Amino acid sequence: MDNSNVLIVGSVAFDTIETPFASVEKALGGSAVFASMAASYFASPRVVGIVGEDFGSEHFNRLQSRGIDTTGIKTVRGGETFHWAGRYHNNMQDRDTLDTQLNVFEGFDPVLPGDYRGSSHVFLGNIGPDLQAKVLDQTSDARFVGMDTMNLWIAETAGKLKNVLRRVDLLFINDEEASQLSGEHQMLNAAERILELGPRFVVIKRGEHGALLIGESVKPLFVPAVLLRNVVDPTGAGDAFAGGFMGFVAGADAIDRGTLAQAMVTGTVMASFAVQEFSVDGLLQLETAQIESRRKALASMIDFE
Amino acid sequence: MDNSNVLIVGSVAFDTIETPFASVEKALGGSAVFASMAASYFASPRVVGIVGEDFGSEHFNRLQSRGIDTTGIKTVRGGETFHWAGRYHNNMQDRDTLDTQLNVFEGFDPVLPGDYRGSSHVFLGNIGPDLQAKVLDQTSDARFVGMDTMNLWIAETAGKLKNVLRRVDLLFINDEEASQLSGEHQMLNAAERILELGPRFVVIKRGEHGALLIGESVKPLFVPAVLLRNVVDPTGAGDAFAGGFMGFVAGADAIDRGTLAQAMVTGTVMASFAVQEFSVDGLLQLETAQIESRRKALASMIDFE
Repeated sequence: MDNSNVLIVGSVAFDTIETPFASVEKALGGSAVFASMAASYFASPRVVGIVGEDFGSEHFNRLQSRGIDTTGIKTVRGGETFHWAGRYHNNMQDRDTLDTQLNVFEGFDPVLPGDYRGSSHVFLGNIGPDLQAKVLDQTSDARFVGMDTMNLWIAETAGKLKNVLRRVDLLFINDEEASQLSGEHQMLNAAERILELGPRFVVIKRGEHGALLIGESVKPLFVPAVLLRNVVDPTGAGDAFAGGFMGFVAGADAIDRGTLAQAMVTGTVMASFAVQEFSVDGLLQLETAQIESRRKALASMIDFE
Repeated sequence: MDNSNVLIVGSVAFDTIETPFASVEKALGGSAVFASMAASYFASPRVVGIVGEDFGSEHFNRLQSRGIDTTGIKTVRGGETFHWAGRYHNNMQDRDTLDTQLNVFEGFDPVLPGDYRGSSHVFLGNIGPDLQAKVLDQTSDARFVGMDTMNLWIAETAGKLKNVLRRVDLLFINDEEASQLSGEHQMLNAAERILELGPRFVVIKRGEHGALLIGESVKPLFVPAVLLRNVVDPTGAGDAFAGGFMGFVAGADAIDRGTLAQAMVTGTVMASFAVQEFSVDGLLQLETAQIESRRKALASMIDFE
């Protein structure tokens, strides 16, 4: 890891999760948390988010233990942190939302600390397009911007979302959302429609089925998911993917095909660690050798010589 | 293509299919038909199956035009050919069976012509395990046997199915069936449970999400599906995959990692051609250059240098 930085804006949350095998209450979560933890192995993340007074120092400490700059996380006195509760089905993919308490997140207004404004790499987590645009207004020096979105924003604020899409380099999106946004069922067609909306690259995340990168000037790249014997909690996998990807790109500070390919592999590997524990426990204390070992396992799976 | 042969046993059928975009009535189909068409580009297929008097010479001619030996297809006088009717949902993956008329297929008793009995490579399509065992009794010289199965046989004749699994080299199975047979949700665990049942290799077919090969002595291999702009009819994709795979293995007559990897690529490519037309139309007249072009597109998608 060098001194390269990556600005990450998104939710900081408590997750209460039930799976068929175990459960956890009010554990550290949120898109900015998963993404910054994953990115921290490859670049220095700076987080912008909002929490309540119930977000104790132990949570700040966990983020800081990974070298993450948390000065952009605002604490609202007397407020409560965003809380999401969900239950996974037996297949560990489908899930039902049991409860969503936006709390202080409802008033999130991303104002960047002065030293964040020169960030070279920016990841806009899954927040409303108005807020994403506001971050872009404050980061005019960024060399590479990635963004996430979700079905809600595609359905309800499509116009604003498209305005943001024109201003970013890369969109991370899952396959269902890619179809929803493009009106296309085949992923190649969906990706090409999305590129017409502005981004230079789109990464279609397909969960346990891998991820696909399509860009205007590179041939399609596909990375399968890591084969795992045990999945504890899929929450945050997509954010860990994006964080690993963006951290790798920031660390490499290049956008050639080889860098994008290794960023795809890195995102895939970080997502695989994320799902093997609840909360961010799988991303807290990884050794370089563990990360490299999974890179090699992936390379072996697609080594056809 | 050299003189290597591959024996293919399975259904020969008429398919009536509706998709959201088009439909076809009583078109040539069946597992043995799709598999032998796909195999025919890499080895000389010999087919064992059963049809009714309504299976006209034009259908035999189509098979023979690909160099397929049809002397093992028995015609039942006054009988009617197996007929399946189904309708695909908008996602072109889920489907409902509208009608199944087994007709002469109900009395299928695979007796091999004498010159088929020395076949070096055998593919047992999706027929009952009793019939699969009967084919194995007549092919003791086979060097490599691949088989398919389905949810019906796993649910209703598991004991007999396991007896057959002990006698084959490779099982082709889709992901849902792999979970059903093994009781495991994670594909790595499912594959390992299946290997304990006897086969040396298992190929888990995941449709548009690619295919995974796990074997006792090779590291896992994964091949993504070809990115297609248009899917006309997914029927027969799995059989075309298995046929392409088995044909390639028969043509190469080797079972090293490189051969298995290229067999996976070949199966993937042949399935991609199959789904772009109704019936076997996509597999009738392919040029070597078309096949090589898709091999190269796949290799490029996973080329991370």
